[in-house]
Amino acid sequence: MLKLSRAIFGVSRRFNSTDLTTVKFDDGIKEITLCHQKTRNALSIAMMQNIIDNISKENNNNSLRIIIISAEGPIFSAGQNQNFNFQTEESGKLKQLQVFDLASKLMNCVIDSPVPIVAKIDGLAAAAGCQLVAQCDLALCTEKSTFSTPGVNFGIFCSTPGVALARTVRKKTALKMLLTGLPITSREALESGLVTSVCKDEKTLDEELKIMTDSIKAKSRSVVELGKRFFYEQMSLEVKKAYEAGGLKMVQNLQMSDGREGIKSFVEKRKPLWSHE
Amino acid sequence: MLKLSRAIFGVSRRFNSTDLTTVKFDDGIKEITLCHQKTRNALSIAMMQNIIDNISKENNNNSLRIIIISAEGPIFSAGQNQNFNFQTEESGKLKQLQVFDLASKLMNCVIDSPVPIVAKIDGLAAAAGCQLVAQCDLALCTEKSTFSTPGVNFGIFCSTPGVALARTVRKKTALKMLLTGLPITSREALESGLVTSVCKDEKTLDEELKIMTDSIKAKSRSVVELGKRFFYEQMSLEVKKAYEAGGLKMVQNLQMSDGREGIKSFVEKRKPLWSHE
Amino acid sequence: MLKLSRAIFGVSRRFNSTDLTTVKFDDGIKEITLCHQKTRNALSIAMMQNIIDNISKENNNNSLRIIIISAEGPIFSAGQNQNFNFQTEESGKLKQLQVFDLASKLMNCVIDSPVPIVAKIDGLAAAAGCQLVAQCDLALCTEKSTFSTPGVNFGIFCSTPGVALARTVRKKTALKMLLTGLPITSREALESGLVTSVCKDEKTLDEELKIMTDSIKAKSRSVVELGKRFFYEQMSLEVKKAYEAGGLKMVQNLQMSDGREGIKSFVEKRKPLWSHE
Repeated sequence: MLKLSRAIFGVSRRFNSTDLTTVKFDDGIKEITLCHQKTRNALSIAMMQNIIDNISKENNNNSLRIIIISAEGPIFSAGQNQNFNFQTEESGKLKQLQVFDLASKLMNCVIDSPVPIVAKIDGLAAAAGCQLVAQCDLALCTEKSTFSTPGVNFGIFCSTPGVALARTVRKKTALKMLLTGLPITSREALESGLVTSVCKDEKTLDEELKIMTDSIKAKSRSVVELGKRFFYEQMSLEVKKAYEAGGLKMVQNLQMSDGREGIKSFVEKRKPLWSHE
Repeated sequence: MLKLSRAIFGVSRRFNSTDLTTVKFDDGIKEITLCHQKTRNALSIAMMQNIIDNISKENNNNSLRIIIISAEGPIFSAGQNQNFNFQTEESGKLKQLQVFDLASKLMNCVIDSPVPIVAKIDGLAAAAGCQLVAQCDLALCTEKSTFSTPGVNFGIFCSTPGVALARTVRKKTALKMLLTGLPITSREALESGLVTSVCKDEKTLDEELKIMTDSIKAKSRSVVELGKRFFYEQMSLEVKKAYEAGGLKMVQNLQMSDGREGIKSFVEKRKPLWSHE
Repeated sequence: MLKLSRAIFGVSRRFNSTDLTTVKFDDGIKEITLCHQKTRNALSIAMMQNIIDNISKENNNNSLRIIIISAEGPIFSAGQNQNFNFQTEESGKLKQLQVFDLASKLMNCVIDSPVPIVAKIDGLAAAAGCQLVAQCDLALCTEKSTFSTPGVNFGIFCSTPGVALARTVRKKTALKMLLTGLPITSREALESGLVTSVCKDEKTLDEELKIMTDSIKAKSRSVVELGKRFFYEQMSLEVKKAYEAGGLKMVQNLQMSDGREGIKSFVEKRKPLWSHE
């Protein structure tokens, strides 16, 4: 189902749309917009597969520099609740394993993407929707946005969202969200670490997002990839081992063609010309 | 020593009191109030054993949903300093080992309790008292509350409180507290992650606490237990392994009777009837 | 090059100066001031070696209680960029390995120093300069200070600064800094955990720093050493193992002469007399 005509996006180089997501690829930025409002943008199997495909199919596309995950309507994503109906069936457990295996794949896909992935939230992000926000590298939201992990209210503790929260927000805030199911405001989300910035409204959010995407588009894709990968790799290392590994990574970076070009342009006081390789 | 008559607590189902703690068990909430003001609620061997017993004896009591640890008087707890007098004795080292073994048991007991444990602070929480606040799942305090790890002032670095702080508050705040012994305000405690919320006074603290306990009482005890356990278990896993383990935990949760009831009630648009099993 | 006469420092017991750093050692406080403004206090091989020597040569000096790292001019340190010119040389890689090996040594030297190390920032701390701030035990800055990891702008991702940031600031702030290279304000630095305190201006910074150094000078050096070491050691342990190790560390602390003296003075209501051994 094609919801919006190609014309709307002006200079877009590619454009795809399904009834689940609207995808715009324009000048290095791929924006995946969840648009299945009737399920409150539920992360159904089809939706998760859609996002995974949209992220991973660009892994070797050098013209991509940043991915934005946004949503139509007042709900960024209400999580996976739509998937749980099958649990009364005989074959439920196998299906559940499949769902959560795919959910892990989605998270790994965000971590493993060579480009930064930024969540853009203007409304509610709940359960696995909140997990997706927490796992993204960056997240911008409007003041009116709220975040929750309400699974415990209907007997399904948000254990996997908790994995993302525990690594992103303060422990006491993560546990409040998980144990009570109560939502937090955009202000609490900022203070606890869940989002990078809070913007007054959608307009200022778009301005802030443009600063961020303009900034990232000006970098070497291969250098950003190396840096993002190492950031997640070193997380689980003891600090001294992490510094040692970091030093080797810096040397590897300096040997890259874009590392050499970066230094050269700096010395020559000119803009770098990246090969992105 | 029975300090308060049973009548005061109205509908309380059980009531215990010693000269160390006052215990109220009412409608799913067990409140353990430290009331040994002459030692500034010191976490003596007897006090630690008292709290451990009060927590762990309810581990299999399905009518318990949440534990509150609070205090009478202006000091939540001044820590273990009362225990240190023995160190001049010949047999000091064995006794010290016993004290810190018990202190670890108390922390493990908080982590392992199947229900959320919330600290309610209206005054000073120092040293092991601050450690207890940091280790609790949730913590509410009044504006006038302060927090410190002053052991270093009298030659005993707060090494075990540091274990809790390092996992709860910002590194630079934890080290300021540990290295200088200087107290932090309730505001700094909130910003650094030590407490969940700061309330204007005791009245608003009680209101905020009621929202929290009402919320937790409405959940399935067994689902909360599964979720709390997994939260602490996954902390030390590498992120992708944690997601994998989280997926299996979600499936296990969906197979539980209260997981099935939760989904069923959600689909049928009615309140869930938990078995808590 | 001796930039400042001995007289300026009044009661200073020792005084050293090179064209890289000015060093003042006064009443237990060693202040290492980066003063190579023409390179924006670049962490060149010579500068890193200078700081390492200045820190490590006091490791067994009991009269030292705290180290301050500060800077002359508007830039605390612009990082290692001056080192990168060699990368166009044939022998570049070996030299690079040497640089990053030394950078790791500097970080380990800060971690392993027996005394607290505090960064004092009144301006820009960038790249490895920001890494140094993040790795210091404490950090005070003025309101006008800014912090950035801009390496990605010129093709060299700040991978080692990221090691320090990932362990000190909120993930979403760390990734914003690393992926965009954009600076953060002193306010964001405080909120995200990068600094301990923000002061209005240099005067209030000096007052706040004096409170901190006076506080630390009043402690036992050996007890602070034991505590600082354990804080970093226990970071990578699972929480229950960390409590167990913490208990043993507390007992070891109680057996120390300054542990005994601390308790004794506390019981006798007098100031402790530390042996610092």
